[in-house]
Amino acid sequence: MSPEFALIARYFERPTPGALLGVGDDAALILPAAPSELALSTDMLVEGTHFLPGTDAADLGHKALAVNLSDLAAMGARARFALLALAMPQVSDTWLAGFSGAFLALAAKHGVELIGGDTTRGPLNICVSVVGEVPPGAALRRSGARAGDEVWVSGTLGDAALGLAVARDGLVLEPAYKQHCLARLNRPQPRLELGLALRGLASSAIDVSDGLVADLGHIAERSGLGACLRWESLPLSAALQALPDQGLRQRLALAGGDDYELCFTATPRAAGPIEALGLRLGLRLTRVGSMVEGQGVGVESAGQPLVVLQGGYDHFA
Amino acid sequence: MSPEFALIARYFERPTPGALLGVGDDAALILPAAPSELALSTDMLVEGTHFLPGTDAADLGHKALAVNLSDLAAMGARARFALLALAMPQVSDTWLAGFSGAFLALAAKHGVELIGGDTTRGPLNICVSVVGEVPPGAALRRSGARAGDEVWVSGTLGDAALGLAVARDGLVLEPAYKQHCLARLNRPQPRLELGLALRGLASSAIDVSDGLVADLGHIAERSGLGACLRWESLPLSAALQALPDQGLRQRLALAGGDDYELCFTATPRAAGPIEALGLRLGLRLTRVGSMVEGQGVGVESAGQPLVVLQGGYDHFA
Repeated sequence: MSPEFALIARYFERPTPGALLGVGDDAALILPAAPSELALSTDMLVEGTHFLPGTDAADLGHKALAVNLSDLAAMGARARFALLALAMPQVSDTWLAGFSGAFLALAAKHGVELIGGDTTRGPLNICVSVVGEVPPGAALRRSGARAGDEVWVSGTLGDAALGLAVARDGLVLEPAYKQHCLARLNRPQPRLELGLALRGLASSAIDVSDGLVADLGHIAERSGLGACLRWESLPLSAALQALPDQGLRQRLALAGGDDYELCFTATPRAAGPIEALGLRLGLRLTRVGSMVEGQGVGVESAGQPLVVLQGGYDHFA
Repeated sequence: MSPEFALIARYFERPTPGALLGVGDDAALILPAAPSELALSTDMLVEGTHFLPGTDAADLGHKALAVNLSDLAAMGARARFALLALAMPQVSDTWLAGFSGAFLALAAKHGVELIGGDTTRGPLNICVSVVGEVPPGAALRRSGARAGDEVWVSGTLGDAALGLAVARDGLVLEPAYKQHCLARLNRPQPRLELGLALRGLASSAIDVSDGLVADLGHIAERSGLGACLRWESLPLSAALQALPDQGLRQRLALAGGDDYELCFTATPRAAGPIEALGLRLGLRLTRVGSMVEGQGVGVESAGQPLVVLQGGYDHFA
């Protein structure tokens, strides 16, 4: 067996009972549950753009899959399968063991099977594609928000961006806050359970990957509406609350990416069931604003407009 | 609209009538034709590994999709959808226009819709994932060959590798041969029609991406058999036949990658229908050997064993 195939077999080939055919042929074969729609997404992580050189291999393995599963969560889809294309400058058993271990652990946690992929030599680049299932018509689209809907977010906002400031810029935090924010940056938790439970409750959803204002902006644009956020309502972790710089806190919470929480909209009548859902999942769900006629995303604080900050992250800005 | 979203909209967003939801949400949504199995594959092309720096953008756009569609052809699947993740060092309108134009032209030729993707900054890297449909049980797997089956290949072998020798190493060929081989290298034609027509005729199939001996070796291994090739039977183009160096000719034809022809096996009783199929498609289909008890791939010439050459291309060898 050639080195390339040996490393695929060793690190990435696992039983795939949910597929008809997994790794090892020209393509994988699956038989979707009928009737169901399939949700498909692909995300590429590049060294120097999405993560710092030297980032821990296990963190990368986790995050590469997590950010893709987060897209399925935002559709209300059940995650089923993943494909992994991986370019590496050289083969390191230590690196591959760490990467594949964390990737496959997260996959197993969510019932996802790795059914195919590609490995090649090149600058470090990780491209994951995922397949999820959703009953016909039940997917949570960005375009479904209506004027008067309330805007919700899960978890807390800005922690991953604060973690990046620690890892990249050397910002100093108390040890517990530092640990919290680095975990949020390196080990995002895709909100798949939440996405499934929001079917029929939410009118639209998106995952917060580029920053709340930017991502809610996509919902607003696709729904032909505007949105208004209340700064005082935003869920902030103790780490963010402890920051003395109010401007930094606002930038992180409103425009910091990589949190992979869900932002969703729902009619006010759904507030009770959504609050109950948060309790059941042990996940903070917070009303942070509402959808309005118009366009764009505004933020107000104490009844006054807050200067709108830079939008989300744009790789080519 | 941010630059990133503007370029996606301009260069990659086209109508996707076959999908429920295309580019622009957290994931694309498709409703597979029932009953059918889905074939899924992903391939990554890296500058410096899979193509030379400075390769024409249109050639890359074509080839990135073609090599993925070739995997679907080898499964006997009908190509339906593609996702494209693209890392680029900078945004060039000229480059994007060339790349997307050729990508979308090949997609349209085969009825494939681009339903999602990702664009980011980074060393040039193109990762395409494709989705095909195949009736239940009809997929052409590598594992289906039986002892006594004949081995077939489509088209001619070694042309792309000869084109690489021209482009990379400055090998000099007659102009017509040079043009032929560079077209074979840069504009491979996925044999999708052939793959569809081989359902029920072929017992196994693979596409020739790493070289005939290596790829037929995968069929042999997965089928628990060996294979024997006759050198004199291999289909060689005029460009290869004109090479004075017999050793080079053999290396190119037996171990040269990137031809993206199909290698398949079939019972001898299927020879008539397969020959008729070749005539109908206007595509040369040639019997080059047979599957035997044992293991490995042997090559004989004039009844004598030919020294077995290096196997196929291994990125980490």
